[in-house]
Order: sequence, then C-alpha cells, then structure tokens
Amino acid sequence: MGSLDRSLIAGLSVFEGLAATDLDRIVGQARSLRIAKDQPVFEQEQEAHSFFLLLDGHVRVVKSTPDGHEVTVRYISPGELMGIAHALGRTTYPANAIAAVDCVALAWPSHLWPTLAANFPSFSANTYKTVGSRLQDAHTRVIEMSTEQVDQRVAHALLKLVKQTGKKTEEGILIDFPISRQDIAEMTGTTLHTVSRLLSAWEDQGLVKSGRQKVTVVEPHRLLLIAEGRAEKS
Amino acid sequence: MGSLDRSLIAGLSVFEGLAATDLDRIVGQARSLRIAKDQPVFEQEQEAHSFFLLLDGHVRVVKSTPDGHEVTVRYISPGELMGIAHALGRTTYPANAIAAVDCVALAWPSHLWPTLAANFPSFSANTYKTVGSRLQDAHTRVIEMSTEQVDQRVAHALLKLVKQTGKKTEEGILIDFPISRQDIAEMTGTTLHTVSRLLSAWEDQGLVKSGRQKVTVVEPHRLLLIAEGRAEKS
Repeated sequence: MGSLDRSLIAGLSVFEGLAATDLDRIVGQARSLRIAKDQPVFEQEQEAHSFFLLLDGHVRVVKSTPDGHEVTVRYISPGELMGIAHALGRTTYPANAIAAVDCVALAWPSHLWPTLAANFPSFSANTYKTVGSRLQDAHTRVIEMSTEQVDQRVAHALLKLVKQTGKKTEEGILIDFPISRQDIAEMTGTTLHTVSRLLSAWEDQGLVKSGRQKVTVVEPHRLLLIAEGRAEKS
Repeated sequence: MGSLDRSLIAGLSVFEGLAATDLDRIVGQARSLRIAKDQPVFEQEQEAHSFFLLLDGHVRVVKSTPDGHEVTVRYISPGELMGIAHALGRTTYPANAIAAVDCVALAWPSHLWPTLAANFPSFSANTYKTVGSRLQDAHTRVIEMSTEQVDQRVAHALLKLVKQTGKKTEEGILIDFPISRQDIAEMTGTTLHTVSRLLSAWEDQGLVKSGRQKVTVVEPHRLLLIAEGRAEKS
C-alpha cells in the first residue's frame, strides 16, 4: 500500500476519528485491486473471504432470486465498504457485486475483522453506522414500495442516484455511471416498459434527458415534486 | 434483577458464548419493565435512551411516513433485541415499537452500549448477527415486493409469522398474537380490501381460518405453494 496516498483515505467517513498511525496499521493490512467494468467483486453465496473499501468507480449490488429474478439492492460509491459479511455474522456474501465501471478497491481478509474491530473501535463504530444507514435505506424502500405510485418510486430512485453520484454538466446533473432502463426497473420493482414510458414522458416535459445507459436530471426540483406525489398529473 | 431466573436468559442466542459471570454482569446493568398491550416501548424520532431485550410478548415495529402512512417493519419475538439505535450510530429511534400484547423486557441505558460491546465481544457479535439478518429480511422484502404477486406476498407474510410465533392448536398453527387484516396489509404493501379478499378465498379453500385479530394456518404446505407461485390458480 506504499503507493497509496494516505491523505486520500484519511478523509473517508469510515476512518473518521482514527489517528494517522492507526489508519496506517489498518490500511497496511489491505491489498489494493482493480476490477474491470462488468466483472464481479464478489458473488452471492460464495465464501466471504474478503471485505472491501471502494476507492474509485461504482459497484452495483444485485440479489438473484431462486426463480431467476435479479433485483438491484444498491449502488456502492467511492469511500463505502462492501462485502462486510463477517461483521454481520455471515460466512457467505448475501448478493453479487458487479463493477459498473472500472473500479479500484482495497481488500482485507475477512478473518481480520474481529481483531480490527476490537483494536480500532472507531473503525468498527463507523462500519456499523454504515450498516445502520443501509438498514434504514432498505426500510425506506419497503415503505416506498408499499405506499408510493410507480412514478414516485422511479423519481425517488433517480434523485437518490443523483445525490449519491451526480456530476454537474451543461445539461443538468448526470448520473455518473452507466445505468440502463432495466437497472432502474430492477431498483424500483417495476417493468422496463413502465420505466421507458416514464422517462419518455419526463423527457418530453424537459425534466430529464436520457440516452443509452445514461440519465441526466435537468430539473431536480420538478422531479422532487413527482417523487413526493405533489406534481400535477399531466 | 435478582428475581430473574438466569437459566431463562442464558439460552437466548444473543447471549451465546458468554460465561455465566459475564451474563450476570450484563444483565445486572439492566432494569426489567412491563409494557401493557398497545403501549409504546419506544417512539420514532425520540431520543434513543435505552435498548431492550424482549423476554415475553410480541412487539410490532411500525414506521410512520411524513404523509401519514404506517408500515409494519417487523414483529419482535421473545429473545430479540430492539431499539439498538446506538449500536448503529443513531441517536434516535428509527421507528415506533408498540406492544402487541402485554410484554416483559429488559432495558439498558444506551450509553452503556460501547462499554458492553468492548467488554463482551460475543454479545456485540451476536447483536450484529441480528442486525445482519434484519438487513437480509428487509432486502428479501424489497425483492418480494419487486417480483411477487400480492397473493404470494401475503402467503409469505403469514408463513413467516407462523414460523416466528406459531402455536399448534387443534385447528392448525395459530399466529400467537392479535393481528388484524390491516396489519397484514401494512406488512405486504397492499390494501385491507385485498387482504380480506385473499383470506376469504383461502378460508373457503380450507387453507386458513381467520377471525377478529386472529389467523390460523390450517394447511401450511398448500400456503407455501401459493407463496412460491406454484399453486394452480383457482
């Protein structure tokens, strides 16, 4: 890890509250790796040999169901941990993680988790804070699916991606990784057909622009009105 | 806590791997309390002053949305922790917890969590294992809502409650706490009307019996066929 600039890593919230020497000791036990676009970082039901910190890129976490459905559970952004099965008492990965673009990550052997957690309480507390917000996210999604119309859910999903990964461009805020209409359908529990219909309607209204694996939100405030069910129906 | 029989508590999975003296030290810092049916154990957005271990009864965890919807997130059974906000880096409770029947629980002040977690790694590991399975449950529910028909979701919800709380009776397996059709609707993201229609149809087919706040599963295997989408449509 000698080539890695510590200042890049020290600012990440997962390392908040750690002294520089502690940070060096934690990062010194990791190896860095590159994952090419569309390659797996880890696979569902495989032995959870490592846990990871994403440094660059975006990773899509997808759960496969026994009957062959795929559901996008979440996107991982730089600075986030992933594959922390051992920290949650699991020995296998609960889902597939696939590089949405070329990625760089740190990987620690999972068997180090108990020692790292015991020696560096801040690291452990920060990790469980991440877990807590993922649990909240999952419950929020259950609630959205219980109480919201499909247009609200798709609008919420786009706004969340914009918040997580948005990049300002001349046209608006670009979701900064390749995302297909099928991906959006899998995130919102609807069909490709419905997502296509909504995106076309919103494009006609000047709210978004979309192309192949590309979505730009042009009018986030108007999209928020739709997400909150406050837009006038057109 | 002198009046509490340690043998009752030692068998709980959250205390697995703890020596009797450690168990006494942990439980010695708790107070026991009774919560009457329909009373709150804790409330959404309130300061998370305590975390709890349910010893007897059933607790319904409900999230309120800003626009006034209520969604039942889960039911807590005896032996489960609840309100462990601090262990997940939160200072407030993320939901309401309401006693579904008269309950008995242990309560620890939340500020003790870091010390307990540091001194008793098994207790902490067991707690996070619970968190891990709740995260899995939440993702499973997202997947069910994305990929399953409403009859499958309601069948899954009933089978899960039977597994969690089922009590054998002459008629079949009773869900052992008061549960209304509205509760089931809130658990499965559907309407009271749909739940009533399904339960009536299943009662006609001899799969379930239901009364006011009472559901008995008569034929779990046939309900499982419905849950898995393998039942012939009637």
